[in-house]
Amino acid sequence: MDVIWTIISSFLEQLQKPTLSFLIAGMVLAALGSKFEIPAPVYQFIVILLLLKVGLGAGIAIREAEPMTLIVPALGAVVVGVLIVWLGGLTLARLRGVSQVDGLATAGLFGAVSASTLAAGMVMLDDSGQEYEAYIGALYPFMDIAALVTAILLARLAAARNSGLAVQGGGALALHAGQGGVAVEQGSLVRHILVDTCRSPAISAMLAGLAIGFLARPDVVYHSFYEPLFRGLLSILMMIMGMEAWSRLSALRKVAHVYVFYGLTAPLIHGFIGFGVGMAAHHLTGFSAGGVVLLAVMASSSSDISGPPTLRAALPEANSSAYVGTSTALGTPTAILLIPLWIALAELVISG
Amino acid sequence: MDVIWTIISSFLEQLQKPTLSFLIAGMVLAALGSKFEIPAPVYQFIVILLLLKVGLGAGIAIREAEPMTLIVPALGAVVVGVLIVWLGGLTLARLRGVSQVDGLATAGLFGAVSASTLAAGMVMLDDSGQEYEAYIGALYPFMDIAALVTAILLARLAAARNSGLAVQGGGALALHAGQGGVAVEQGSLVRHILVDTCRSPAISAMLAGLAIGFLARPDVVYHSFYEPLFRGLLSILMMIMGMEAWSRLSALRKVAHVYVFYGLTAPLIHGFIGFGVGMAAHHLTGFSAGGVVLLAVMASSSSDISGPPTLRAALPEANSSAYVGTSTALGTPTAILLIPLWIALAELVISG
Amino acid sequence: MDVIWTIISSFLEQLQKPTLSFLIAGMVLAALGSKFEIPAPVYQFIVILLLLKVGLGAGIAIREAEPMTLIVPALGAVVVGVLIVWLGGLTLARLRGVSQVDGLATAGLFGAVSASTLAAGMVMLDDSGQEYEAYIGALYPFMDIAALVTAILLARLAAARNSGLAVQGGGALALHAGQGGVAVEQGSLVRHILVDTCRSPAISAMLAGLAIGFLARPDVVYHSFYEPLFRGLLSILMMIMGMEAWSRLSALRKVAHVYVFYGLTAPLIHGFIGFGVGMAAHHLTGFSAGGVVLLAVMASSSSDISGPPTLRAALPEANSSAYVGTSTALGTPTAILLIPLWIALAELVISG
Repeated sequence: MDVIWTIISSFLEQLQKPTLSFLIAGMVLAALGSKFEIPAPVYQFIVILLLLKVGLGAGIAIREAEPMTLIVPALGAVVVGVLIVWLGGLTLARLRGVSQVDGLATAGLFGAVSASTLAAGMVMLDDSGQEYEAYIGALYPFMDIAALVTAILLARLAAARNSGLAVQGGGALALHAGQGGVAVEQGSLVRHILVDTCRSPAISAMLAGLAIGFLARPDVVYHSFYEPLFRGLLSILMMIMGMEAWSRLSALRKVAHVYVFYGLTAPLIHGFIGFGVGMAAHHLTGFSAGGVVLLAVMASSSSDISGPPTLRAALPEANSSAYVGTSTALGTPTAILLIPLWIALAELVISG
Repeated sequence: MDVIWTIISSFLEQLQKPTLSFLIAGMVLAALGSKFEIPAPVYQFIVILLLLKVGLGAGIAIREAEPMTLIVPALGAVVVGVLIVWLGGLTLARLRGVSQVDGLATAGLFGAVSASTLAAGMVMLDDSGQEYEAYIGALYPFMDIAALVTAILLARLAAARNSGLAVQGGGALALHAGQGGVAVEQGSLVRHILVDTCRSPAISAMLAGLAIGFLARPDVVYHSFYEPLFRGLLSILMMIMGMEAWSRLSALRKVAHVYVFYGLTAPLIHGFIGFGVGMAAHHLTGFSAGGVVLLAVMASSSSDISGPPTLRAALPEANSSAYVGTSTALGTPTAILLIPLWIALAELVISG
Repeated sequence: MDVIWTIISSFLEQLQKPTLSFLIAGMVLAALGSKFEIPAPVYQFIVILLLLKVGLGAGIAIREAEPMTLIVPALGAVVVGVLIVWLGGLTLARLRGVSQVDGLATAGLFGAVSASTLAAGMVMLDDSGQEYEAYIGALYPFMDIAALVTAILLARLAAARNSGLAVQGGGALALHAGQGGVAVEQGSLVRHILVDTCRSPAISAMLAGLAIGFLARPDVVYHSFYEPLFRGLLSILMMIMGMEAWSRLSALRKVAHVYVFYGLTAPLIHGFIGFGVGMAAHHLTGFSAGGVVLLAVMASSSSDISGPPTLRAALPEANSSAYVGTSTALGTPTAILLIPLWIALAELVISG
């Protein structure tokens, strides 16, 4: 019972930290019908700054460390991304009232990563004094792309099985899909999802930051500009996400109740998967306690910025109000509110 | 004569401070026909950051002080807001060439508060080393809402008297207006103005900041992000307000000259009302000299962001180019330029 | 050979500095088809902040120094602006496949100044520890306006010669053009170009900053807000300019190849002109080594923000995709990449 008590008191303490309090303030504002809003161009800019910061920090860290140390955690991130989608395919996508493609698209989003949730996790770790590998931001695209590729591949395979015909791609990706056999097409499909995801504004900001941090010397501008702005802008981003989550709740009334159940429980289950894989890396390679927390945070989070457009292009037949609604209204706030759990758990299991 | 001389030299000194010099630069740019502009989304974001900062600061201060100490100044703020509108109803609204509803709407805006003028007052006090209660920002909504509610109620009562019929609400508020007697309707009207004002972007940003500051622990992000940005963004806001004021001047040519007279003298008279009420609080409860100045600044200022939409919804029959033009083109710059007067006066009367 | 080696190694070192690495990252992102973008309102705001900062810094410096010391460098800036356009009129504008008005418009843009390139030069000088006169930003409008006026005058004179008729102004400027003789009209034309350029958002932000810096005391807000943001925002601006340059490259396919040659070589030649005039000022008045570098950077740069609209209004018959494309796609990135050359050269010639 002591464990639970520690977690609850740590959670209550975290609620008062800027990150969570701004998130909740945003939800309360939306619930009270406030017309408060951050203009869209400013919101996009804040997201880009956060991702550039995460990328730059990771790039600088990889340059200073051994690039090889990244391999085990990167593999871990890929495994977690694939596992989450595969699990969603076995559960959510088989339930009554959920079409297979909708279930897989939702699982894909929940396997993909939310940059703002990751950023919130970093700030909370900093506040609680737990250290983590600075290169951790570089794991983001590994888990993100693995989840999206798996979800889209499984959905297309299912469609091919169902129709007994060669898979016909939809949307932008169809233009590239070859006329050859299913195997050839799958290879090209994977490549195109990869390219499309890397070209998305969010991931390319992160990758650009990573490249600049790794190849150049942006340390001065990183420490004098990107880092100090990070916490402040995150507080505003949290408020926007809180409002957005609340306003999306109504869209969920039109979809099966099972989405609500999935949106509330999946972040917990996925976080435990990430935590477990992180613990394995901890025992194998000395991966830090903070790193384990951040792997759990990434696994727990669901993509709200970069994922949806990729899924919309690749799976145009999926119902986007189901998967985006579940992720934005339930998955993201739940994942953010769960961060204190992973911090408390790591303290108990590793440091304690 | 020494007093006047002190005030003049203090004023000339203040003109060189960033706040006033950026305001004047904006007016000069507009007068010279410059195409300089700050994009609207960025302007909205700057306003929101300023209001979040004011709210957070007030919330943190109330948490650290006794919430009870707020009661006397808050009552004072309400009294000032009501007095200003009542005075406008007795003077401006009875003049020839001014319809009663237009006069009351204008008095309502001049009773309401400008967040940027208040922010400018805070920065100038900081610069001149005069201290003030950090919770002062929390007085803003008290004066603001009191003035708007009084103006709308008086305008509707006048309309009811004139027509001899039950008041029929207009705009968004009409939807909520009950079918009962005038008294019942007035109660519901007040409630709806209150709710509408609190839901406006500006006031809800302030209230969200207040709640976060009071209930959570945003101190780190407040000191590392909101406070340092405050002065810089205020300088840009002042430039925008200067340009806006100048460009609205032409709209005033179409309305009665008495609006020009009101726009230029009301900030001075209202400032003295605020100063007087502040002095009473000073003698009763030891309210600080800086607090007296800021009460005068709030009373002197006229609402340019949150007030107009509320009035437009509640009094659709009022001529918005009269009241918005008078407030934006004359009231706001006059109130900002008068700030040094209240600082000098407080030094003479209280500190001197 | 040592000289060349020093320049090459200094160049490679500068490539790793934030300024150039963000520029190159932007070009790579665009080349890889990334959908990364900074929303236009935020981009405009960043440009305005940079120009306010450059103006404020120059204004503060002029106030603290003797205003008279500005005269020789300002004359030098005018001479450089005129020389560059005159040279373009003798070369580019006479080539086959290039209409005279297109050639002169292009030379006008290459004679005008890019604020972001100038800002990049300042940051790189700061990084390499070379000092420069803080008033140097005030030279910007002298070179900028001289070049634009010369280009437009020469283009109109040529048109008058060709048609044998009185020059008929086009666009907005035509409204002001008098009915008198050519000489009278030219005087009024120069005045209108001057007024129009000074009213453009970029130049008026700079001039407003200059006036505030010179007449008021914005030092606190300058050091606490404008200066710290400068480097950070410049890094983002460089990324946007890199992407913009790459995406404009395709527009160049439609124009004569000689534009590509001009766009790549003119920044080098113009930089040497600026460097030479700066050296003259160095020997005459002790103008600093850093000042010589910045004069070369201004001469080398081509206008990408304030110049195009002025040219479009004054020379509506010129092909804007030729001159804007050449300047944005080739002139600006080349000029930025050449900055290390001028720094290395100044070290060799002056300090060494």
